[in-house]
Amino acid sequence: MLVWLQINLYTMTGQRALTPNPSFSLTVRLVIPNLPGMLAKATVAIGEAGGILGAIDLIEQTRNQVIRDLTVDAASEEHAECITEQLRLIPELKVLQVYDRTFNLHRGGKIEIVSKLPLKSRADLSMAYTPGVGRVCMAIAQQPEKVYELTIKRNTVAVVTDGSAVLGLGNIGPAAALPVMEGKAMLFKEFAGIDAFPICLDTQDVDAIVETVERICPVFGGVNLEDISAPRCFEVERRLQERLDIPVFHDDQHGTAVVVLAALMNSLGLVGKSLEQARIVINGAGAAGLAIHHLLWAAGARELVVCDSQGIVSLNRSDLNQEKLTVAVAEQGDLSGAMRGADIFLGVSKGNVVSRAMVAGMAPKPIVFAMANPIPEISPEEASDLVAVMATGRSDYPNQINNVLAFPGIFRGALDCRASLINLEMKMAAARAIASLVSVEEVGPEWVIPSVFDARVVPAVAAAVQQAARESGVARA
Amino acid sequence: MLVWLQINLYTMTGQRALTPNPSFSLTVRLVIPNLPGMLAKATVAIGEAGGILGAIDLIEQTRNQVIRDLTVDAASEEHAECITEQLRLIPELKVLQVYDRTFNLHRGGKIEIVSKLPLKSRADLSMAYTPGVGRVCMAIAQQPEKVYELTIKRNTVAVVTDGSAVLGLGNIGPAAALPVMEGKAMLFKEFAGIDAFPICLDTQDVDAIVETVERICPVFGGVNLEDISAPRCFEVERRLQERLDIPVFHDDQHGTAVVVLAALMNSLGLVGKSLEQARIVINGAGAAGLAIHHLLWAAGARELVVCDSQGIVSLNRSDLNQEKLTVAVAEQGDLSGAMRGADIFLGVSKGNVVSRAMVAGMAPKPIVFAMANPIPEISPEEASDLVAVMATGRSDYPNQINNVLAFPGIFRGALDCRASLINLEMKMAAARAIASLVSVEEVGPEWVIPSVFDARVVPAVAAAVQQAARESGVARA
Repeated sequence: MLVWLQINLYTMTGQRALTPNPSFSLTVRLVIPNLPGMLAKATVAIGEAGGILGAIDLIEQTRNQVIRDLTVDAASEEHAECITEQLRLIPELKVLQVYDRTFNLHRGGKIEIVSKLPLKSRADLSMAYTPGVGRVCMAIAQQPEKVYELTIKRNTVAVVTDGSAVLGLGNIGPAAALPVMEGKAMLFKEFAGIDAFPICLDTQDVDAIVETVERICPVFGGVNLEDISAPRCFEVERRLQERLDIPVFHDDQHGTAVVVLAALMNSLGLVGKSLEQARIVINGAGAAGLAIHHLLWAAGARELVVCDSQGIVSLNRSDLNQEKLTVAVAEQGDLSGAMRGADIFLGVSKGNVVSRAMVAGMAPKPIVFAMANPIPEISPEEASDLVAVMATGRSDYPNQINNVLAFPGIFRGALDCRASLINLEMKMAAARAIASLVSVEEVGPEWVIPSVFDARVVPAVAAAVQQAARESGVARA
Repeated sequence: MLVWLQINLYTMTGQRALTPNPSFSLTVRLVIPNLPGMLAKATVAIGEAGGILGAIDLIEQTRNQVIRDLTVDAASEEHAECITEQLRLIPELKVLQVYDRTFNLHRGGKIEIVSKLPLKSRADLSMAYTPGVGRVCMAIAQQPEKVYELTIKRNTVAVVTDGSAVLGLGNIGPAAALPVMEGKAMLFKEFAGIDAFPICLDTQDVDAIVETVERICPVFGGVNLEDISAPRCFEVERRLQERLDIPVFHDDQHGTAVVVLAALMNSLGLVGKSLEQARIVINGAGAAGLAIHHLLWAAGARELVVCDSQGIVSLNRSDLNQEKLTVAVAEQGDLSGAMRGADIFLGVSKGNVVSRAMVAGMAPKPIVFAMANPIPEISPEEASDLVAVMATGRSDYPNQINNVLAFPGIFRGALDCRASLINLEMKMAAARAIASLVSVEEVGPEWVIPSVFDARVVPAVAAAVQQAARESGVARA
């Protein structure tokens, strides 16, 4: 709910309205008289209403009329309705149908399970299924390691959630989380050739989550935890990794931390500062914030201050849980105070909590990663003249901090060498590999991290992760 | 283990050796001099060794030599080795490599998870994943029923096993059961377009199985239980169906029962007997045997005798569990006695437990379904002159009683009308639909059941099941 209300507010106040983008895109089917200037009436109306035109497809043409599908990006659902309304007001045109492209694309789900082999004859059946399959089963029963050779296990990852912290939407439950987990499975396949299946758990009890995942594990070569709220996510991950001999990786924590570290490496080079000496403020003390703290610490950062909604996570506070205590510092105060003189701001919190004044009070050449989604802590439009480097979590601004740069390659590497876990060395190697793909010649304020569509990313990350796994002794194949 | 020993015995004694079949097939790569009559040396040797030649592929040809792949069906692993040995003995030929085709086909697993949509641009990403996916999640959070419209749930089935009764192999555990569950998922997709995913549970405790399946259910539209041993399977199924609002179907029970009933309908017509009056002996009081009993009873059969390894399941016995008690009869004795004068023998037990004399003692025009796999209770070669109709579970004899005739169509029908369960009416409708596909003109001793590759089966079963669901009030869409 929160998200739509926020977007609404922007649109209504006219301030900081979001750029139209494909996540709110429509396909409008129009009947247009077959006369000069008629399509222009539609395109002008769309432009005046603030919509951005994409594809225009010709569906049918007769002597009198033309039917066309117009794809239009809007900035919100309300904006989309407003654009459609403008089209309906043109007397010469008729709006036949309006599709919400995002909903259309999700209809019936986004992944499917297919056979790798034909199954067209009795011979196919008798090799793939009974009676031939019995020989394969017996081979595994006699040599359990063969499950990696003769089944899907070696390339299959469970994407596990309890629906408690889905995107920025909060605790919406396992069924409502499923579209995200399907999306994650798509990313695993498209980017790394990994078969991932959504496991949406109808429980939010830590014991129950751990024992359920443990019980379904024979099929899986790895576990990707997703959108489980802090602090439960820390215990779920720790206990599962203790009990299982396959990698368990909470992407919201480590995926984010790896990509942040990669982007910071290049950003620091650009401004001529060092990680060891930089003052770094992390806003958000959930899964991502704490994981970023731990990885940056391991990479050498020492002046790290974490803030949550109550301000600096300080040793003087009495409301800290076990996990927050591990990052607490002596100083106290609010976010604004924490940011004064800071070299780096890393936001994994929520939209619009940072003002221009707060950025202006940072040290010279500040680095700001405002990664809250979909609304950044401060928008690039507002901050751009104040910062040396700016990154967000969004795809429509430069420097997108996107986990898809990390998790596909990390799992590819871990699965390929059958790592028993994903350790610090492997995460550091992944960050270095990602950073290294932006060359010294290319690096700039709007290019500190490679594109998610850079085909070199997954192979580079996978190779680095695999090497780190071997060197640190967790590879088993 | 048992299976191979049995097959071995047959081969070694030379008695009742199995027919060579694709589940034991090889591909032999041979280097053959490029001279007349050389390939013939190989094919003659294979024939003399009892192998059956399939494809012969030309791999490479030079002036002096030819490299060919010969596909050969054998009757057992030992037989396959013996054939290879014969080829190695021919001085002119060189065996380059021998592949076990079944193992080759299983390498890396038999199913994969793929995206239904391209994911090639930022626009694709922002609709399928963040930020667009958030709108879809919220729609489901607000209207939970939409999970059926906007996710994979409506077409996705969990294939659940604990590995306790896998094929005829026994309690080989969840990992060794995975190749069968993958095979089942292939069948679901190939025959009914259903996405099925293997859930192999690392527990054999009834409470743990039930609670685990319950917890992972948000993703699934149905549960297909598979290869769970009796009597635990009955309780697992009953308790899961009580707790879940999606169909739970133990295929070893009901799939088998439906196909047996279908084949019996046509067989009885052929011999001019009625189900109500026939004396029916069921050998095997596990999942399949008891389910067959219950379905035949519901269909009108009254003279039903179930036997287990201790003979007739009789009220006079003190060793019966709750489930066997439900089928116990007053009479007592051994299988041989039970079969005397019987009209129908239905075997779901193990190989070679029925002799020619036992069949000869049945009523005139006996119907024998010897469905133990891979070795039938009595082989068609032995019994053919004594029976009116004979069926087995094997694909290399006529009248294969194969669950694949039932479960794909049953689930297709149940998912399409969003049935809350699969009830007796739906199973009866499935049996009638299968039986009806063998027309009066076609029906004969070797044709009482359609082929698994008859494309009419799944649509016919699905339509009948859906109608029965609607009429019995369990359809929800």
